[in-house]
Amino acid sequence: MKIPKAIQNLIESFERLPGIGPKTAQRLTFYLLHVPQIELDKFATSVQNLKKQTILCSSCFAIAESDPCDICQDERRDKSTICVVEQPLDVMALERSGKYTGLYHVLHGKIDPLNNVGPDEIYIRQLLDRVSVVQRSGSALISEVILATNPTMEGESTAMYIAKEFKSQNSKVKITRI
Amino acid sequence: MKIPKAIQNLIESFERLPGIGPKTAQRLTFYLLHVPQIELDKFATSVQNLKKQTILCSSCFAIAESDPCDICQDERRDKSTICVVEQPLDVMALERSGKYTGLYHVLHGKIDPLNNVGPDEIYIRQLLDRVSVVQRSGSALISEVILATNPTMEGESTAMYIAKEFKSQNSKVKITRI
Repeated sequence: MKIPKAIQNLIESFERLPGIGPKTAQRLTFYLLHVPQIELDKFATSVQNLKKQTILCSSCFAIAESDPCDICQDERRDKSTICVVEQPLDVMALERSGKYTGLYHVLHGKIDPLNNVGPDEIYIRQLLDRVSVVQRSGSALISEVILATNPTMEGESTAMYIAKEFKSQNSKVKITRI
Repeated sequence: MKIPKAIQNLIESFERLPGIGPKTAQRLTFYLLHVPQIELDKFATSVQNLKKQTILCSSCFAIAESDPCDICQDERRDKSTICVVEQPLDVMALERSGKYTGLYHVLHGKIDPLNNVGPDEIYIRQLLDRVSVVQRSGSALISEVILATNPTMEGESTAMYIAKEFKSQNSKVKITRI
C-alpha cells in the first residue's frame, strides 16, 4: 500500500525531532488525523512563527520577544550577579524555581571537541566582553559569575575554560561553580 | 520571566499530543529554534495539509489519497478475504509484512463502553452491509472475514460482537479471529 503523501510527509517531519522514532512519528501523525482542522492550523501557525516572533537578547542571549529581554530590562533584578547556563531552557528552569534574582548569560551550547564545538562556537567571548565592559564603565559592578553549566564532562570543561579565561584577564569578579 | 508567546504556543501544541508531557514539549520546541526556517515551514505545511490531502476510502475506510483506495482498486488483491482492523495504522503494519493479499476494513476504533464508544460509533454496520451487498450481487464472493482487532479486552469484545452480528444475519461467510 502506498502511504498517502500528506501522511508520509508529516511522519518524516516528526521523525526528524530528537527522541522521536518511526513508531512514535506514525502514532502522532495518525492521532492528528482525528484532530479538528482548526487545531491543526493552530499547531502549524505555532511552528511557522516560532522563530519569526522570537529574537536573541543581545545582552544575555536568552530567547525573548524584545531586545533587551524582560530579565535584562527588569529594574528589580540584581545586576551584580550573572548566572551562566548552556541553553535557553535552563533559564526557564531556574526562573521556575523563583529563587534566583540576578541576570543570566546563555552560552547556547558547551565546549564539545568531539562534536566540533570549540569555545568560539558558543557565546563565551560575549560573556567575557559583557563583564569587562560593565567593569570598565564603573556604573555598575558585576561581582559574581555563577557557572551553572551541566554536571557533564563537557559542562565541567566549559566551566573550567570560562574560569581560566576570567583569570587570565585578571578579572576581579568572583567565579563560582554550582 | 515571561516565556515568549510563540514558544508558549508551540509548547502547548506539543503537549496536546498523546505521550508528550510538558518536559518533552519544551525540549522539542527549543530544538526547533535551532532548525532552519525552511524546515519549519515544511513541518507546518505537513501539519496543515494532513487532513486536506487525505480522504477515507468509502469501501474499506482506510485513509487514502483516492476513493476507492489503492488496495480496494488493486486488481491483484484477493477480493474474497476482508481483514478487519481497529485503526488505519494497523493496515500499514500488516502491509509492511507483505504477507496478506486480501482487502481490509478499518473500524476506526473499538467497542469501549467505558469511553462511550458503542457499536454504532465505529464502522461495524458498514462492514456488515459491505459483505451482504457483495454476497447478494453474486458477482464475487467474500468467503472469509478475519477479525484482527487488538488482543485487548475491548478488541476481543469488538471481535465477538462482529462475529455475533454475522451469525444473526445467517451469513455464510467464514469468520476467523487471529
